[in-house]
Amino acid sequence: MLNPHYVVGFVDGEGCFSITFNKNGDRLPEVRLIFEIELREDDREILEKIQELLDCGRIYHLDYARYANWRPHVKLKVSNFKDISEKIIPFFQKYPLQAKKSLQFEKFCQVAEVIRRKEHLAAEGIERIRKIKA
Amino acid sequence: MLNPHYVVGFVDGEGCFSITFNKNGDRLPEVRLIFEIELREDDREILEKIQELLDCGRIYHLDYARYANWRPHVKLKVSNFKDISEKIIPFFQKYPLQAKKSLQFEKFCQVAEVIRRKEHLAAEGIERIRKIKA
Repeated sequence: MLNPHYVVGFVDGEGCFSITFNKNGDRLPEVRLIFEIELREDDREILEKIQELLDCGRIYHLDYARYANWRPHVKLKVSNFKDISEKIIPFFQKYPLQAKKSLQFEKFCQVAEVIRRKEHLAAEGIERIRKIKA
Repeated sequence: MLNPHYVVGFVDGEGCFSITFNKNGDRLPEVRLIFEIELREDDREILEKIQELLDCGRIYHLDYARYANWRPHVKLKVSNFKDISEKIIPFFQKYPLQAKKSLQFEKFCQVAEVIRRKEHLAAEGIERIRKIKA
């Protein structure tokens, strides 16, 4: 099993904590928190080890054959809110990020709090999330 | 001070162990081992912390203003053979890389061994290094 500090270092370099809005017809956009790490395909093994340590997420094969000079990539993605809330966030609170990615993570946690309180289901909550994101 | 496992994780994602040949007129090329990490300028602080933990290397400011859309970068670079041999290599032998970068590191160590035995000063040694690199 990987050392958790190793995973923090790897994520500080290669990880991404994103806040996305999905259009939803005339209704309020759907807010999603996504944690992901994308690497070249030949580094799939390390993603599997990170997945094991974080105990969540799925690994996707991304074939960008249409881009010349690009090798296929693999991505570890966690987008299930329960996993984000109960596994990803507590992990990085226990083992803090050290580089500027910690600012991204801080916004991510603020939005998770808005979602936990179900405020993202009203226009004001969405507005608050937009401000956090900006 | 950073946790050494953190540094290994960060380097597995963002670090580079390279073997370079510098032309040297009619004489044998000069072999150099370089360890470096290059990041965007706003992540300079983490490089300083890594430099502190590894206890070697210099930080350079790289201004790629000629490339549109590129922000300036910073690079932590260790190219002094004594530091490579007595600090970088022992560190990553004690705290092993976990991703495919470990293969790069293995070649790096093999070349360091050739240099330690001063075999890089003869044509055969250079040939051996070329083979290791390939």
